Amino acid sequence: MPNRTVYFLSDGTGITAETFGNSILAQFGGKPRHVRRPFIDSAEKAYEVCREIEATGVAEGQRVVVFATLVNPEVLAIVREHCKGLLLDMFGTFIAPLEEEFGLKSNHRVGRFSDVAKSQEYHDRIEAINFSLAHDDGQSAKNLAAADVILVGVSRSGKTPTSLYLAMQHGVKAANYPLIPEDFERSKLPGALAEYRRKCFGLTIDPDRLSQIRQERRPGSKYADPMNCRYEVNEAEKMMKREGIAWLSSTHKSIEEIATTILRDIRPDRLIY
Amino acid sequence: MPNRTVYFLSDGTGITAETFGNSILAQFGGKPRHVRRPFIDSAEKAYEVCREIEATGVAEGQRVVVFATLVNPEVLAIVREHCKGLLLDMFGTFIAPLEEEFGLKSNHRVGRFSDVAKSQEYHDRIEAINFSLAHDDGQSAKNLAAADVILVGVSRSGKTPTSLYLAMQHGVKAANYPLIPEDFERSKLPGALAEYRRKCFGLTIDPDRLSQIRQERRPGSKYADPMNCRYEVNEAEKMMKREGIAWLSSTHKSIEEIATTILRDIRPDRLIY
Repeated sequence: MPNRTVYFLSDGTGITAETFGNSILAQFGGKPRHVRRPFIDSAEKAYEVCREIEATGVAEGQRVVVFATLVNPEVLAIVREHCKGLLLDMFGTFIAPLEEEFGLKSNHRVGRFSDVAKSQEYHDRIEAINFSLAHDDGQSAKNLAAADVILVGVSRSGKTPTSLYLAMQHGVKAANYPLIPEDFERSKLPGALAEYRRKCFGLTIDPDRLSQIRQERRPGSKYADPMNCRYEVNEAEKMMKREGIAWLSSTHKSIEEIATTILRDIRPDRLIY
Repeated sequence: MPNRTVYFLSDGTGITAETFGNSILAQFGGKPRHVRRPFIDSAEKAYEVCREIEATGVAEGQRVVVFATLVNPEVLAIVREHCKGLLLDMFGTFIAPLEEEFGLKSNHRVGRFSDVAKSQEYHDRIEAINFSLAHDDGQSAKNLAAADVILVGVSRSGKTPTSLYLAMQHGVKAANYPLIPEDFERSKLPGALAEYRRKCFGLTIDPDRLSQIRQERRPGSKYADPMNCRYEVNEAEKMMKREGIAWLSSTHKSIEEIATTILRDIRPDRLIY
């Protein structure tokens, strides 16, 4: 990737522009400088950002790359005419074929998040976040019946961030429950989970990686000791096998990849945000 | 929006396809049926999903709309040739102008999240989530020096979900601290915050909306009483004004919009995911 500046322009939050832009830019490696310009929702702001883009290009001796998700027709027209960067007009490009396909004009509603705060879906997402927080790390066995999924695994296998991601991005009520040495000694799932076995999804992790992560928390402890980590992971996997709980390894996976896999299992085709 | 089925195809998680697709579809209103097909990373899976798309179109009497983020050239070629839906090839469309602009070939790396689990940025995001959890709702005043931002506001003004969102999506260490009646009686910020005033960002909320939200939690309580909510909100706003703390109202805003505004204040141009 050449040394470029990349702008993300939007009349909403710019999250779509940046998500998409980052995915595309990952195809070129390197780290361009990111400039985020959300809420460009008036002619005045449009002219201003165009001037800024031009000045940046002049100062750097090469034009900037601009990912834009603009639905306000006035703003878009100004940017199209005055933007001296390489303009990648993400909505403009795909709206036209969809209008033709649907035989419908688009509504130019700015921002998929505006007014979303009043919707049932948004309410459900916030409820899911509250649920996942209240049911983090086995804190509460109350109301597990309401959980969409219960992540299980040894401490530091990735349960907490995955649960919160599932709740926040997908409105999934994800509880998580640790498997601890006492469970392995009893060779039994924690009692609270027995009746919810079919909702459980396991996370496992390479023992050496686990030991590394635990060392950061409690250096030199038995908890972080490689032998102990191997024991716990081995016992946890045996338990999940025995109980018929599907699992995956989080070792080389991001929370996004883990969540996508879990969703495929629990709600293959649910609307997400 | 006509009664359509929409597919999201990706050789990665499909998060980009779905984020972008949802933004575009919001321009047409309505709720099409969503079908998510992540991890389409082999010729075999590509043929299979094309057959499925064709069968769906036949069954429904109209072709499906397909948002695709495919970087594997073999998979993309198969989908381009055999997909009987309206194919919106999101990467193909924008990669070519960027290759020309950069004078570089793209690397066809699948999925911006693959192998991300090993990166420093990913590590920092997970640390930020842990930090935000440990500093939720004023649980700990320890290590507030490490916070990037401290959200303050009355109970149920939106601090917790916003903190977690900032951490998860942006790697921002966001603590949050409630303003409670005792603080208003003393007319002082909570003691732990005094030296971190410049990191504080306030959330406020319409008192009637607050009362509604609190009623869901504790019906009939003083906590949820409209008079009490008006008092708390009024006092909190007075305090933020007096202390010179910037704030916004969360009443009509999603956590995405709140977070975008806060980021603009605290880290205008930081790389996000």
